[in-house]
Amino acid sequence: MNAIKDSVHDWIPLDSVATDLLDTAAFQRLRHIKQLSTVRLVYPSASHTRFEHSLGVYHLARTALDSLGIDDDRAKAVRAAALLHDVGHGPYGHQTETVIKRHTGRDHDELGDLLYETELAGVLDAHDIDPDRVAALVRGERPLGQLVAGELDVDRMDYLVRDAHHTGVPYGTIDHGRLVRDLRLRDDQLVLAEGNVQTAESLLLARTLMDGTVYRHHVSRIAGAMLERACERLLDGDTDIETFARMADHDLLVALRKNVPDLGGRIERRDLYKRAVWAGLDTVPDALTDLSRADERQAAREIADRAGVDREHVIVDVPSRPKLKESRTRVVVGGVVQRLEQASDLVSALRATRRSQWRLGVYAPAADQSAVHTAAREVFGLP
Amino acid sequence: MNAIKDSVHDWIPLDSVATDLLDTAAFQRLRHIKQLSTVRLVYPSASHTRFEHSLGVYHLARTALDSLGIDDDRAKAVRAAALLHDVGHGPYGHQTETVIKRHTGRDHDELGDLLYETELAGVLDAHDIDPDRVAALVRGERPLGQLVAGELDVDRMDYLVRDAHHTGVPYGTIDHGRLVRDLRLRDDQLVLAEGNVQTAESLLLARTLMDGTVYRHHVSRIAGAMLERACERLLDGDTDIETFARMADHDLLVALRKNVPDLGGRIERRDLYKRAVWAGLDTVPDALTDLSRADERQAAREIADRAGVDREHVIVDVPSRPKLKESRTRVVVGGVVQRLEQASDLVSALRATRRSQWRLGVYAPAADQSAVHTAAREVFGLP
Amino acid sequence: MNAIKDSVHDWIPLDSVATDLLDTAAFQRLRHIKQLSTVRLVYPSASHTRFEHSLGVYHLARTALDSLGIDDDRAKAVRAAALLHDVGHGPYGHQTETVIKRHTGRDHDELGDLLYETELAGVLDAHDIDPDRVAALVRGERPLGQLVAGELDVDRMDYLVRDAHHTGVPYGTIDHGRLVRDLRLRDDQLVLAEGNVQTAESLLLARTLMDGTVYRHHVSRIAGAMLERACERLLDGDTDIETFARMADHDLLVALRKNVPDLGGRIERRDLYKRAVWAGLDTVPDALTDLSRADERQAAREIADRAGVDREHVIVDVPSRPKLKESRTRVVVGGVVQRLEQASDLVSALRATRRSQWRLGVYAPAADQSAVHTAAREVFGLP
Amino acid sequence: MNAIKDSVHDWIPLDSVATDLLDTAAFQRLRHIKQLSTVRLVYPSASHTRFEHSLGVYHLARTALDSLGIDDDRAKAVRAAALLHDVGHGPYGHQTETVIKRHTGRDHDELGDLLYETELAGVLDAHDIDPDRVAALVRGERPLGQLVAGELDVDRMDYLVRDAHHTGVPYGTIDHGRLVRDLRLRDDQLVLAEGNVQTAESLLLARTLMDGTVYRHHVSRIAGAMLERACERLLDGDTDIETFARMADHDLLVALRKNVPDLGGRIERRDLYKRAVWAGLDTVPDALTDLSRADERQAAREIADRAGVDREHVIVDVPSRPKLKESRTRVVVGGVVQRLEQASDLVSALRATRRSQWRLGVYAPAADQSAVHTAAREVFGLP
Repeated sequence: MNAIKDSVHDWIPLDSVATDLLDTAAFQRLRHIKQLSTVRLVYPSASHTRFEHSLGVYHLARTALDSLGIDDDRAKAVRAAALLHDVGHGPYGHQTETVIKRHTGRDHDELGDLLYETELAGVLDAHDIDPDRVAALVRGERPLGQLVAGELDVDRMDYLVRDAHHTGVPYGTIDHGRLVRDLRLRDDQLVLAEGNVQTAESLLLARTLMDGTVYRHHVSRIAGAMLERACERLLDGDTDIETFARMADHDLLVALRKNVPDLGGRIERRDLYKRAVWAGLDTVPDALTDLSRADERQAAREIADRAGVDREHVIVDVPSRPKLKESRTRVVVGGVVQRLEQASDLVSALRATRRSQWRLGVYAPAADQSAVHTAAREVFGLP
Repeated sequence: MNAIKDSVHDWIPLDSVATDLLDTAAFQRLRHIKQLSTVRLVYPSASHTRFEHSLGVYHLARTALDSLGIDDDRAKAVRAAALLHDVGHGPYGHQTETVIKRHTGRDHDELGDLLYETELAGVLDAHDIDPDRVAALVRGERPLGQLVAGELDVDRMDYLVRDAHHTGVPYGTIDHGRLVRDLRLRDDQLVLAEGNVQTAESLLLARTLMDGTVYRHHVSRIAGAMLERACERLLDGDTDIETFARMADHDLLVALRKNVPDLGGRIERRDLYKRAVWAGLDTVPDALTDLSRADERQAAREIADRAGVDREHVIVDVPSRPKLKESRTRVVVGGVVQRLEQASDLVSALRATRRSQWRLGVYAPAADQSAVHTAAREVFGLP
Repeated sequence: MNAIKDSVHDWIPLDSVATDLLDTAAFQRLRHIKQLSTVRLVYPSASHTRFEHSLGVYHLARTALDSLGIDDDRAKAVRAAALLHDVGHGPYGHQTETVIKRHTGRDHDELGDLLYETELAGVLDAHDIDPDRVAALVRGERPLGQLVAGELDVDRMDYLVRDAHHTGVPYGTIDHGRLVRDLRLRDDQLVLAEGNVQTAESLLLARTLMDGTVYRHHVSRIAGAMLERACERLLDGDTDIETFARMADHDLLVALRKNVPDLGGRIERRDLYKRAVWAGLDTVPDALTDLSRADERQAAREIADRAGVDREHVIVDVPSRPKLKESRTRVVVGGVVQRLEQASDLVSALRATRRSQWRLGVYAPAADQSAVHTAAREVFGLP
Repeated sequence: MNAIKDSVHDWIPLDSVATDLLDTAAFQRLRHIKQLSTVRLVYPSASHTRFEHSLGVYHLARTALDSLGIDDDRAKAVRAAALLHDVGHGPYGHQTETVIKRHTGRDHDELGDLLYETELAGVLDAHDIDPDRVAALVRGERPLGQLVAGELDVDRMDYLVRDAHHTGVPYGTIDHGRLVRDLRLRDDQLVLAEGNVQTAESLLLARTLMDGTVYRHHVSRIAGAMLERACERLLDGDTDIETFARMADHDLLVALRKNVPDLGGRIERRDLYKRAVWAGLDTVPDALTDLSRADERQAAREIADRAGVDREHVIVDVPSRPKLKESRTRVVVGGVVQRLEQASDLVSALRATRRSQWRLGVYAPAADQSAVHTAAREVFGLP
């Protein structure tokens, strides 16, 4: 059995399916897609990629499947799904999800066509694994799909510890060993065994603290919003959406610098827009929290016109309302399966914390910051 | 300047005061007092001592004082206080605090007499440091005493990361570098600079998760209660309280095995009592949460008599009601100093979590567990 | 399956044999024997014990046996041997080996009688494991005994990484994952698979660097020599050697302070003798490198008399000549099994390094240091 | 003072010079140049960049300068040099050094012109730092230049621990804290204080083990040789050498895929050539160890012709003879400054080890491997 050295999980042994999947161009492409896209403009060590993350998810899935006692025939498809769960990502991962969804209607976890358009389906077939089953597992379907995409998936366990290791921010360092060991299948539902309310809480807390400190750091959000805007402009030009969706980070960076030189150059040089508005949920009219991307663009144009600045100098960034998917985690308490939100006092507080972390942002070059600030407050009716 | 290698903070440089204090018998004694007393019966790697913890607290104090720009004349007394903050501990640290307090009226952070009874006052004098000032700082008095004992003290920062390192439980791994860097003195109050609500929350969360998983693990609590009971019996014999208070762990272990062989031997062999009752706050009558140690003993005797077992086979363990001292942490929000409980949605939830972690315990040897269970429920009126 | 959290290997799953062995007094005693005895007087964080080290060795043995594909019937005896390999140690581990050997003729790895005198043999029998077989494996006999005690044993792999973790000295941090994965059995010999000359070298290097920096640090050697001398004096009194051999660290510390108060108190307070002589192999007459303990004592008396100081104020400490057991490690090179010393240019250099690290020491209280220095050079004929 | 979070050194405080230098395009470019170029094809987590490495070198330089007591006026230029020491690198760092040197005659540590062609000289001037002095320091000139480029430079200290952290291979984890603390200036020479022969040896050992396991891993060497060949072909086309030298990794990857699609595509997909020849120093005629790049190309053509394969399908890769620059490290032994090679038995053995690690490689696509093997042995006269 082959093995690959990983800085987080040490040696990761590979079964023959994984060995063959690794050798495909579709999987190797993940070497060129950073796990945390624009976060490394804040935390420079965070240059890890979806390639090693995918290996980590594969590794934790294998360990969990062993611990659950799943026979190898079922397990091998789940392991393959764990390894492949991110191959559908566009360049810069989550940062281009909305753009791709808008142009193709496709989410990054819809692998159906992709498996058949690349060598991946062939490799799976050669190992007697049904590609459609793998695609379903990646969407979180079937009982064991919960291990790949669900409240207790190993994806989350890997990225929290890996992002902590690479950013240097310790909050993500959960006890993944315990989480994986204490998974159980009860009536086809993935649950945590008795005595783990706090283990489940620790997962939520880790996620919440990493959100505030890392994932939603304002510098990363500004760069991300600039990137998304640049991508839209790229796609307004000659670039085809399917070509775009299969780019890797380096392709996109070069394409942007060439075709959208103002924003592309700024991103490359970390010469970022500033916050003209940074407003919490309490001060923002309710209607604003449901803006579509088209609404955002429209608002940005209005603000720019009112401020008398170039329309490309205003970016409006309205995150979706905070969700707390992990609050649905199932834990066994006194022999009974409960949702974590029933079993834990912390969940509602964490909901409030997530709400308090939410910010509407309007960004502009430093020179325009003041004018855009005033205009944006008027357009949005902010206090 | 000397330096000592530490597994948590790497090299710790020592000033001349620290070098001299280290060479006293009173400080060397801390090598023989474990940081986590009975916790290592659950987490076997947790055999670290108050010696290296004290060095760690000294190190963080020095870093914080430098960052605050305190002149060396004031700073050297604070550094000495940080180094000496734990020399007043009895054997097994917090585990014998109540016993010592009951017999002497003295808390472990009252160093006044101790400094003068040992070489410590002489060493401090020789470096032009007033021992009384050091004693006051250890009690948390004076503005800079907050650094040694207060909501934002470096004691807490060191023990959380150190206990995480040694137990292997990651929850304590806070960002102490940021905490220390972002301390400020505002109107003689120690506060966290702007932008650190979440940093302050992380301290509370770390403490709460470590409490549930490590500090209040039931095995450690059982062993701790057995130890305390054994100490009382030791003190009922010939052992003088002042001799007792100056023992180190090994002295106590040997004294207990010799003078209280049943409990002493059990602790040494980790042959512990079991939980006959383990009841949360919701099921326990209010009056029970305020029991004095004398009340506990009286209840234990009643239970034993009713169960028809040896009176020494029942231990009642009622922790004090959970406090959340860290909720008073001062943070700057929008330029104004606030208490964390005002600034954070999490604090009240963590209070609830602490409440839900609270347990009344009644412990007995396995053979008596069932009889004691029944008797204790009757005596305490539990459902 | 139970599991124990370890700060080095994270969760260590325990089979039923291990679970039962853990509950014996003979194994629990290891909680009270520090892994590195007097080293913690130099590296204060190094307070870990043979208890967690034994768990670590058990864990690596299990992993290695799985990787070698050994069937469970053979494997369970080896795992038990790995867990028990250190139960024969006296207090302060290696530091009392010579004393015990001199009085009983017994090495610490001779478990035969001990297993039967304690509950251990009974537990092994109950799991259908022959205690004599376990004793043989601990002595390194039988092919799989090499895994417990041999050039490639997992004992070494655990202690190097564990001692590095606890001292903070990084040199011991080997790639134990690779070593364990690449073990092979060839003609009943334990070897490292092709491509691992450097892996084997790294083990030697780690050991050599840890030797110089940690294991043979002069402060630890002085304290160790004082301890051994104190033990001899203790045994000259009423203390029986078998009682002595079953003591734990705390028993010994208390017994020494009571019965050999000068040395016992000094060790406890870290008030150590100083180096009056510290001479390398090049300057020491050959005859001196083979001194028995009786010779050392005789020389110490001569030196004391000539210096006109108390005979108990001189300790002579002559380590045995450096060996390099690891140089016999078997590695596969080009399909052929070789000894590492054949395959590696480094081995002979490391032999020279070990020679250059060797020191003859003569220790005395600071006040006598100068007189002892002069006398010792005359007695030993040093330049 | 600003600070940046680093996964290796935790918080790195930045002085005002560093803050301003960071904001230049020339420095931001280092975010896009990986520290270990093709190594991540073997160790996938090794995707760290010269940006964070440069911050780490700056940080260690600052600590060393403080410890040496250098006044801030001298120190600030050295800190700037430490931060900028890698801005002269081409894309893929060391991998394109030879190509750039051949076309421009310039080494990567010659910053003279570059500083003036970019904003860097302006920033330095604004802080009263002479750019020419910085350039000299980066070349290792002047006493304190040894800290930036010399046997005891902090560059090496940072990359060893950083590469260990990111690859997961522990061998690079040196005690940089001790190295930095024990630096001294004696007669304008940087030396290690008394008692550090082994500390100096550990640096050599770490480097040697990392060389064998990481830096010269054959997969990385094959990819590197393919990359260099592809760059030569790129430069045979329209690409200007100065444009090339200022590319970042992503620019080069895109340019190669477009202009040298066979090799560029293979590198991107990790579809690498195989080893047709892999010969040690002992089996290679002496003359072969001094081949210039032109000689290598000529030999590759001869081999291809003889094997009857495409000339682009053969790459000859002859590393320069191993050097051991670190053997010249100065250490104080018995009060006298010595070179490490005088003071240490290990140095000559490590020279032999380096020699034994040396390999001449001839690489070809899998389909041509056998034919090329035969032809290459004939051309090179190998046994």
